[in-house]
Amino acid sequence: MVNQVQLGDGSCQSCKSDSSGMGTSGGESSKESSRCSTPVLDSDRSDRLRDKMRKRIESGDHWFSLEFFPPRTTPGAVNLISRFDRMGSGGPLFIDITWHPAGDPGSDKETSSMMIASTAVNYCGLESILHLTCYNQTKDKITAYLAKAKHLGLKNIMALRGDPVGADWEEEEGCFNYAIDLVKHIRSEFDDYFDICVAGYPTGHPEAESYEEDLRHLKEKVDAGANFVITQLFFRAETYLKFLDDCRAVGITCPILPGIFPIQGYQSLRQLVKLSKLEVPEEIMEVIEPIKDNDAAIRNYGIQLAVEMCRVLLQSGKVPGLHFYTLNREVATMEVLRQLGLWVEDPRRPLPWAVSAHPKRKVEDVRPIFWASRPKSYIYRTQEWDEFPNGRWGNSSSPAFGELNDYYLFYLKSKSSKEDLLKMWGEELKNEASVYEVFTSYITAQPNRNGHKVMCLPWNDEPLAQETNLLKDELEKVNRRGVLTINSQPNINGKPSTDPIVGWGPPGGYVFQKAYLEFFTSSENVSALLEVLKKYEPRVNYHIVNVHGRNLTNAPDMQPNAVTWGIFPGREIVQPTIVDPVSFMFWKDEAFALWIEQWAKLYEDESPSRMIIKYIHDNYFLVNLVDNDFPLDNCLWQVIDDMFEQLDASPQSPLHEVSS
Amino acid sequence: MVNQVQLGDGSCQSCKSDSSGMGTSGGESSKESSRCSTPVLDSDRSDRLRDKMRKRIESGDHWFSLEFFPPRTTPGAVNLISRFDRMGSGGPLFIDITWHPAGDPGSDKETSSMMIASTAVNYCGLESILHLTCYNQTKDKITAYLAKAKHLGLKNIMALRGDPVGADWEEEEGCFNYAIDLVKHIRSEFDDYFDICVAGYPTGHPEAESYEEDLRHLKEKVDAGANFVITQLFFRAETYLKFLDDCRAVGITCPILPGIFPIQGYQSLRQLVKLSKLEVPEEIMEVIEPIKDNDAAIRNYGIQLAVEMCRVLLQSGKVPGLHFYTLNREVATMEVLRQLGLWVEDPRRPLPWAVSAHPKRKVEDVRPIFWASRPKSYIYRTQEWDEFPNGRWGNSSSPAFGELNDYYLFYLKSKSSKEDLLKMWGEELKNEASVYEVFTSYITAQPNRNGHKVMCLPWNDEPLAQETNLLKDELEKVNRRGVLTINSQPNINGKPSTDPIVGWGPPGGYVFQKAYLEFFTSSENVSALLEVLKKYEPRVNYHIVNVHGRNLTNAPDMQPNAVTWGIFPGREIVQPTIVDPVSFMFWKDEAFALWIEQWAKLYEDESPSRMIIKYIHDNYFLVNLVDNDFPLDNCLWQVIDDMFEQLDASPQSPLHEVSS
Repeated sequence: MVNQVQLGDGSCQSCKSDSSGMGTSGGESSKESSRCSTPVLDSDRSDRLRDKMRKRIESGDHWFSLEFFPPRTTPGAVNLISRFDRMGSGGPLFIDITWHPAGDPGSDKETSSMMIASTAVNYCGLESILHLTCYNQTKDKITAYLAKAKHLGLKNIMALRGDPVGADWEEEEGCFNYAIDLVKHIRSEFDDYFDICVAGYPTGHPEAESYEEDLRHLKEKVDAGANFVITQLFFRAETYLKFLDDCRAVGITCPILPGIFPIQGYQSLRQLVKLSKLEVPEEIMEVIEPIKDNDAAIRNYGIQLAVEMCRVLLQSGKVPGLHFYTLNREVATMEVLRQLGLWVEDPRRPLPWAVSAHPKRKVEDVRPIFWASRPKSYIYRTQEWDEFPNGRWGNSSSPAFGELNDYYLFYLKSKSSKEDLLKMWGEELKNEASVYEVFTSYITAQPNRNGHKVMCLPWNDEPLAQETNLLKDELEKVNRRGVLTINSQPNINGKPSTDPIVGWGPPGGYVFQKAYLEFFTSSENVSALLEVLKKYEPRVNYHIVNVHGRNLTNAPDMQPNAVTWGIFPGREIVQPTIVDPVSFMFWKDEAFALWIEQWAKLYEDESPSRMIIKYIHDNYFLVNLVDNDFPLDNCLWQVIDDMFEQLDASPQSPLHEVSS
Repeated sequence: MVNQVQLGDGSCQSCKSDSSGMGTSGGESSKESSRCSTPVLDSDRSDRLRDKMRKRIESGDHWFSLEFFPPRTTPGAVNLISRFDRMGSGGPLFIDITWHPAGDPGSDKETSSMMIASTAVNYCGLESILHLTCYNQTKDKITAYLAKAKHLGLKNIMALRGDPVGADWEEEEGCFNYAIDLVKHIRSEFDDYFDICVAGYPTGHPEAESYEEDLRHLKEKVDAGANFVITQLFFRAETYLKFLDDCRAVGITCPILPGIFPIQGYQSLRQLVKLSKLEVPEEIMEVIEPIKDNDAAIRNYGIQLAVEMCRVLLQSGKVPGLHFYTLNREVATMEVLRQLGLWVEDPRRPLPWAVSAHPKRKVEDVRPIFWASRPKSYIYRTQEWDEFPNGRWGNSSSPAFGELNDYYLFYLKSKSSKEDLLKMWGEELKNEASVYEVFTSYITAQPNRNGHKVMCLPWNDEPLAQETNLLKDELEKVNRRGVLTINSQPNINGKPSTDPIVGWGPPGGYVFQKAYLEFFTSSENVSALLEVLKKYEPRVNYHIVNVHGRNLTNAPDMQPNAVTWGIFPGREIVQPTIVDPVSFMFWKDEAFALWIEQWAKLYEDESPSRMIIKYIHDNYFLVNLVDNDFPLDNCLWQVIDDMFEQLDASPQSPLHEVSS
């Protein structure tokens, strides 16, 4: 829950780039859209939060930000991360994660404040602020938290005092007593590394001697090194606007972001008011009390109230961005943002894969295609890399992919329960064909024979991507016959970068793809396929590998093959996706392991169902195919057709000479 | 002249790439053509000469190589370098440069053996062997030569004894006495850095005690570390073939390349025979003596003789490559090679610009477009770089371009004489329009008003490139009106990489270009152009600069813009040409300097002609334009048309507010 509703601040990325002339004087500049989601192609990606804010303020482009608190349970964490992905798509300038002193906030637990903030940055690509409270903490402890946050890629700290648990606050020797102590400590120990946010109280801190005294404290915190302020929630626009004027009057010049609290329910409002020691204005209570048992009515009222207040704030011309206390819920905040026109679900993606916000990864713009449906796994496995591929994948002699062990503990976990998975993937498998049926149901989005839709597969925790949907008919056909597809993309010969399905990157560009198909299939099929592939030399590149690492390829050397690229005005070529022969051997381990870890283990040891999955794991091959001739019609379906024809014409024995 | 006809060896690049499977066992491999000229896209480019030979021997692909001697004069050097370019296009595996003890061979003179070999490697992109003779040299001197050769990017040495000048040979204390001493010295001082070639004498060295004794010496030289052998010339195939068998019999297993000497004239044959102490067989003298005053007849006979002998050698199956003593002439050797089918003028270029063979540059595959017509200038100015751009140009904060001063001394020199230049560019200029006429004549390849064809301009020392020819009509039109174009390329939306005009790189790929136009024009024109360019935002990127460095641009930041790129099977994207705003400022200095250094200085100080060129230099702007929308029709001509329309509609005053 909201562990003291503190501050935070919110906004959305800007991509207005500095256009500086060269030589002895400045030049003309082309203004791009001041809002876009293309960090990798913009200097913006490496900007600090304070710079992003500055640019947005200069461009007059309003932003929003979102506050969340850490979950109590592991399933709660899985849900929250999904929520980050969904709410991240609306374009918050940042999110912030509250510090939960009672929840071991600095630990490595999946539910800790630290790990949730790290996940938001690293796996969801969100600019994030980690709250940190200093009350009753030693300097060493705080320094250790900050060092850990830095190591994890966190760049922004909300410096707070925090409240005593169940007692009144007292000054304590050898510990921090005020937020300003924390601000000073961060600046003295970490110099200018962190962007620091502090809390402002529009009606004065409840424990402050006076409103004026509290303003002076805020001024001191800012003078000590804070970069911006997020306010406690308030119920009337004029409360904030007066506070803002008073802050400016005492010389606080940094951004001061209003904290918006959309009322979402009677109980949460009461609890919040109690914690924050705020009073709810008469006129609001008068509306709410009569409908206190009607959650929907209260929420609608809360939305209407928030929208009206936000409009007043924005129209004042004094508010660059709005910060939302979400209470970890989506509906109310998204609705307010939609009504304000701030929620822009931008179909444009910066790159064809989910960009991480870790500062070490800010130049990264090339990844192997294999993890397309498992970007968090890829980020996890590469988190210890010192440098990330940029421009080219390069001749990666041996990319050091991390092990999956820990990963299984958390990030690999399916969002579905074991019960749901069994319904989707079959309580009991009869033979390999039962498995083909599961794949086919997933592709077609039709219910399986027991009436359950197959919403995910071990290799895809989401329904089929829109782009893959373009290939649906062909995919259905081949899966029915045991070509078990787990990744594919159509060929694209220069579609606009703004294309709603295959586009990515800034507007005005063109995107391209080579057709790609990746699937598991039997050794019999591989025998026929190899025969057929001779006809497609050198147009089709293939890599075929079994669980033992037996690898068949016609790639001329160990060089990567670019399969997605984009051409943009005034830029070098971007080629974000490659097929890398070396990485494929690491992916192979992961892809085969998923058969056992996610599917076989649903069934009893020694059960026929388990043995079927194990048989596939032990005997099938993982195949990837690239059609290099992207301007022509994709020939990969013809390759598969030819393979079936070959099989039908002369049934082959299993690929004995191929098995290791 | 041929300072003792010594050895050498010849061949041509191979691009058969090692196709190694991964994992526990090997895989299938796709054979590419065993001959191609695409070093940058192939591991081949970084191969040592010995590896190139090995691969060619394995693939059964015959090669040739060419021996040259250093020129006496600077104009001779300019001619020889042109010859390297022309003969390099036939695909020699390497060339070698003889050591000319009387000509200060290790000095920095443009005509020294060292500098000629360096030029071949660095500026002509030819794998080269530098001869080195050790007779009467101190170890320190030899070590210094080798160190210098290494620094210059030379990787191969032909280790020779050399002959005393005008005296009989005697052993000398403290100096090298035999080639084997030099081989041992190279290996002891430079480990395995150099590939070493030694000389073999099919009829025994004239000073050897016996043929057998000489064979033993050769065996010792190879055992001491030589990688291959090139033979002295011979007149009968059986002489070489017996020698080869004898070498194999005594255990010499390395490649032994036959030295071919096409007889080109009576005098040169006599001189050669005298130097090499060889006897010309009766049957040859009988043919030659009667026609000794008929050069053409002797040459034709020599060609016929060489072709016949080479056919016997190649058909023996024992000869992997043929080495030609060219005597610095082209006709006979090229004719022999053509008749043998070894001369393959391959229109495919590895990259759209001339690749250097310096080992430091082997990964280089991105260059600014500005030096497209002046690649040797670019190589010269970047020779001290520690790393060369690969994959991306990158955010080159400040590429360190070398100064032009020394460059002017030699490499910048036009192949034409001052007299010829004046004929082409005008003995006397009347006004700016006279200059427009020169540009127009160059573009149209029509004689100027005095009946002379304009074959070059200060920015282009060659007639218009084939690709530029595609734009001829438009170029003529704009040059007539004072848009003085010096560089341009059409837009290309995916032509095959084998396209004879715009293609480059390995077969099976597609090449692309953004339209590019670079020109000098007056400040009046620039005023109108800036007005017009507003309509073309953000499609057209521009950089406009005058000699003072005043720079106008709409580029969103200092990032480079890729204007040439290629997509190839199984490869990452290659983007060899970019428009880089930072490099443009260095190019600008060079481009403006050429007005003065190459053109204005043809005229008397204070002469009206000189003043006109100086006025242009001082007042015109250098403009580059990129049309980012490569799939559409090139809009840059429309931009220029609009500019003229703008000028016609409202004549503008000079761009006063723009001049610095």
